[in-house]
Amino acid sequence: MNIAVAQSGGPTCAINSSLAGVIKQAKLSNIERIYGAKNGIDGVINDRFCDLGALLDTADSLTLLRETPSTALGSCRIKLDDSQYEIIFENLEKRGIGAFFYIGGNDSMDTVNKLHDYAKKIGSAIKFVGIPKTIDNDLPESDHTPGFGSAAKYLATTVKEIIADSNVYNLASVTIIEIMGRDSGWLAASTMVLGESLHLIYLPEKPFDLDRFFEDIRRVQKEKKAVIIAVSEGLRNNDGEYVAISHHSGKSDVFGHKYLAGLGKYLEVQVAENIGCKVRSVELNVCQRCATHVASVTDLNEAEEVAMAAVRAGLDGNSGVVMTIQRVKDSPYQVEYKPVDVKLCANRIQRFPLEWINVHGNGINPTARGYFLPLIQGEVNVKYENGIPVHFRINDEDFNV
Amino acid sequence: MNIAVAQSGGPTCAINSSLAGVIKQAKLSNIERIYGAKNGIDGVINDRFCDLGALLDTADSLTLLRETPSTALGSCRIKLDDSQYEIIFENLEKRGIGAFFYIGGNDSMDTVNKLHDYAKKIGSAIKFVGIPKTIDNDLPESDHTPGFGSAAKYLATTVKEIIADSNVYNLASVTIIEIMGRDSGWLAASTMVLGESLHLIYLPEKPFDLDRFFEDIRRVQKEKKAVIIAVSEGLRNNDGEYVAISHHSGKSDVFGHKYLAGLGKYLEVQVAENIGCKVRSVELNVCQRCATHVASVTDLNEAEEVAMAAVRAGLDGNSGVVMTIQRVKDSPYQVEYKPVDVKLCANRIQRFPLEWINVHGNGINPTARGYFLPLIQGEVNVKYENGIPVHFRINDEDFNV
Repeated sequence: MNIAVAQSGGPTCAINSSLAGVIKQAKLSNIERIYGAKNGIDGVINDRFCDLGALLDTADSLTLLRETPSTALGSCRIKLDDSQYEIIFENLEKRGIGAFFYIGGNDSMDTVNKLHDYAKKIGSAIKFVGIPKTIDNDLPESDHTPGFGSAAKYLATTVKEIIADSNVYNLASVTIIEIMGRDSGWLAASTMVLGESLHLIYLPEKPFDLDRFFEDIRRVQKEKKAVIIAVSEGLRNNDGEYVAISHHSGKSDVFGHKYLAGLGKYLEVQVAENIGCKVRSVELNVCQRCATHVASVTDLNEAEEVAMAAVRAGLDGNSGVVMTIQRVKDSPYQVEYKPVDVKLCANRIQRFPLEWINVHGNGINPTARGYFLPLIQGEVNVKYENGIPVHFRINDEDFNV
Repeated sequence: MNIAVAQSGGPTCAINSSLAGVIKQAKLSNIERIYGAKNGIDGVINDRFCDLGALLDTADSLTLLRETPSTALGSCRIKLDDSQYEIIFENLEKRGIGAFFYIGGNDSMDTVNKLHDYAKKIGSAIKFVGIPKTIDNDLPESDHTPGFGSAAKYLATTVKEIIADSNVYNLASVTIIEIMGRDSGWLAASTMVLGESLHLIYLPEKPFDLDRFFEDIRRVQKEKKAVIIAVSEGLRNNDGEYVAISHHSGKSDVFGHKYLAGLGKYLEVQVAENIGCKVRSVELNVCQRCATHVASVTDLNEAEEVAMAAVRAGLDGNSGVVMTIQRVKDSPYQVEYKPVDVKLCANRIQRFPLEWINVHGNGINPTARGYFLPLIQGEVNVKYENGIPVHFRINDEDFNV
């Protein structure tokens, strides 16, 4: 029997570690050929496959793949339509593929769900299994998602460095750090592991009020010269509108683009005008999802293990499931892997728990520390050559089998 | 005899390594007391000193200081005026300080120069010696400056990861990476070590023309789906005006602030409107000067050695000098340290050599590789506890001696 695997959605630091896990388990399970599809389900539709077993035939190459950021197979963001099922099954079946593994986020689980349903409908024996990934940590049914721990470790490291940078001058200042998370505040919340050196944290789960924000800053300023603030990019006001975008609506700026001002830049200008001290905003941007040089080893290990468990589940005949991570305990930290009906998480979002946000909506309760801390443990020793990190690369011309 | 040291200007990854170097050499030279002034020359004026020999009395603490970002003693950005000399010399002399070491950039060398001149005028025996630091690499007389190599290594690592992130989708895209450098393009130029995966590089040393920029992108797009571009924040047009600011002048945006749009954001909008593909800008911001977790060991070593050489020079009776790095050869890489009259570099800027920029003004000649590559060699093994990097910290109340 052969299998196929593809990667989908936004890249993470751990999505290639899951790919390495699929390959490892397939080799252990004596799978004949491990096909990799280019650019997610798009490559299955367009018949673009590589032979992963041949491309990654040494332990060193698997280690290098594991520590390579972004998606080695490429990615896509498409919603399947009915006309595409036939060609998908044709291209899988002509290669003798008995199980298809899709590494992706909430949307990709919808694809797994649809393909599983279609297989049942046409009586195909092909199994479809989801392998989770998303830095947003918002997949229901899983304690956390591969990719999140590395993003959180990047944030703990980088925000700590920015705090050191912000404290050098003997004058009042405000530093606003904009963190990814359109719909959920998990990533911004994770910076709470830095303790009291980070003064204020705001998440999309609580409506954001600008006047209360100024009050918070003025209160901290009574004790601290340099105020440090973390904000989720997806903050919304009382009407449920994005804070950064709502500010623009109806007004003409010189560009006429809503996406001009990020939230951090918007808040920076507001603080400058209303509080009047030195203020800076830092948008950490895509580095949150690709800074593999500072990945969490716990995260990379789990990304690999959850993928291996998914392959075993698929080979055991499971289909229409996603492999999830279940936390057994915080300390000593222990997890187990469990397949869950993919319908339970497709297209749904798991938000940050309201009970972990303080009553003022400007910080995270210390109890959340036990949740976050295990996920950022362990430093990766990435390979450098000539002072530059080395990445594993699959070339365009390799997709020819 | 006692000595004093202070740090000034913008933080870097290596400025604390120079502080460690001052302490190491002072101990080797049997200096009785090593005073550290808080917030640069400001701490000398306000009589805020700590006892660095006592605070850093183990090899481990010196290693931790070396790998701590930002300025452990704090920093300042002030220009001395005539009324302040008297109190400075009074506070130094009452502590028996025979030599004062100032770790800083171009402006700080002006302070060293003034204090040296004033000492001569009043017949004081105190020696004043500069220790260079700046991520901008624009100090004249020095082959390069401590802090630059680590910033360049951060860029090589991070930009390589962003390139991987930008290549995942099967569609035309442009990624614009905004890199520090108001007046000189050294940092943006250093990304040339990544070779052909970075397609276009623009520096302040050559006038920037928007139409030529679009032409360059369209040309690269004929061969590449994802176009990757590095720009110095300080790009100027043919009239010598900053590209990002000049765009705003005379127009009213919703904020009324010139600093709203960074260069990257401005170019992002221009590309979206004129080329029309997916486009993203990433401003790397202060991480360039504080990401010690990915510092260059070569840079940290040189920062320490140049400081040790400065202390020896001061104890030998030199004053009014800055210790510089002279490159002996590229390969095998070798440098030596040489004191230079501080007047030769105070308030002056060393620009990126025009002969290393290609004729189109959109890339760096391969010959520059031999200059940059040795500076980013060696990976630091920073200390982590609980998954979070550990930094050395001098507390406010330690400045009491």
